[in-house]
Amino acid sequence: MATNQQAELLVKMTRTAWDAQNKYLMQFLESVDNQKLHNEIAPGKNTGAYLLGHLIAVSDAMLPLLGIGDKLYPDMEEPFIKSPDKSGHNFPPVTELRQRLDVVNAALNMAFDKMNADEWLGRHMAVSPEDFTKEPHRNKMNVLISRTNHMANHIGQLLLLK
Amino acid sequence: MATNQQAELLVKMTRTAWDAQNKYLMQFLESVDNQKLHNEIAPGKNTGAYLLGHLIAVSDAMLPLLGIGDKLYPDMEEPFIKSPDKSGHNFPPVTELRQRLDVVNAALNMAFDKMNADEWLGRHMAVSPEDFTKEPHRNKMNVLISRTNHMANHIGQLLLLK
Repeated sequence: MATNQQAELLVKMTRTAWDAQNKYLMQFLESVDNQKLHNEIAPGKNTGAYLLGHLIAVSDAMLPLLGIGDKLYPDMEEPFIKSPDKSGHNFPPVTELRQRLDVVNAALNMAFDKMNADEWLGRHMAVSPEDFTKEPHRNKMNVLISRTNHMANHIGQLLLLK
Repeated sequence: MATNQQAELLVKMTRTAWDAQNKYLMQFLESVDNQKLHNEIAPGKNTGAYLLGHLIAVSDAMLPLLGIGDKLYPDMEEPFIKSPDKSGHNFPPVTELRQRLDVVNAALNMAFDKMNADEWLGRHMAVSPEDFTKEPHRNKMNVLISRTNHMANHIGQLLLLK
């Protein structure tokens, strides 16, 4: 296999892993009603609604980090990333969270569909061009790998609600 | 960046993600005593000991799947992969499980340290050479990506024991 084909294949495999986790999340959400998402995953732990909001907010933050665009729901950072569950913030209704997940994923996937290996291996927006020349692993693909594992981590918890 | 460098960088990033999950698992194990690992992660769900055994058994099965060698603990497949928790199987003591995790990880990492992008993109042992020519994504790197996400999934659950 030519080396440029190798890089494109590796990028495709990583994208497929991201898609797979998103598919697991959607399958989980289809299997539970809104009421159940208000339950805690274990006694005293996060609720399903908080974890869903957290995953949406983290995915939304990928838009500026990957240079795709502005966040669609900047108001979600405070209650779902900066604050723990039960911090007193009002959460959007679960029906609204479900819709926001679809909107954020559509924006990410539309951009991902156009990116080749060169673009994925370009720097993400939280690293300066100077630092990036010394640390080429701080690229967009690494953000995708990291966020895929983060999502897998919380999906494992959400599944306990079933 | 030359395209062969791109492939090696992508391979390194995926390896780093695997290492990171293993590190999280070790940090978790250092933070809990053996007694706590016998608790259920949530009422009626898997125990920590089962999930630890499950992760060891799945990692052990990577040895033959990646063509590295035979399983070190083939007796773990039945109680920890083929069977659910509380199936009546006797589990090794948690102290023994902790040691087995170290042994399996050492065997995997020693092999991983020697593999370049060409080797990672070679077929895994569960796909035939004929099928692999048609489906080049069924390679060793894809196994590593999949197992990394699987581990992240269960680490998210184990963390509930803390």
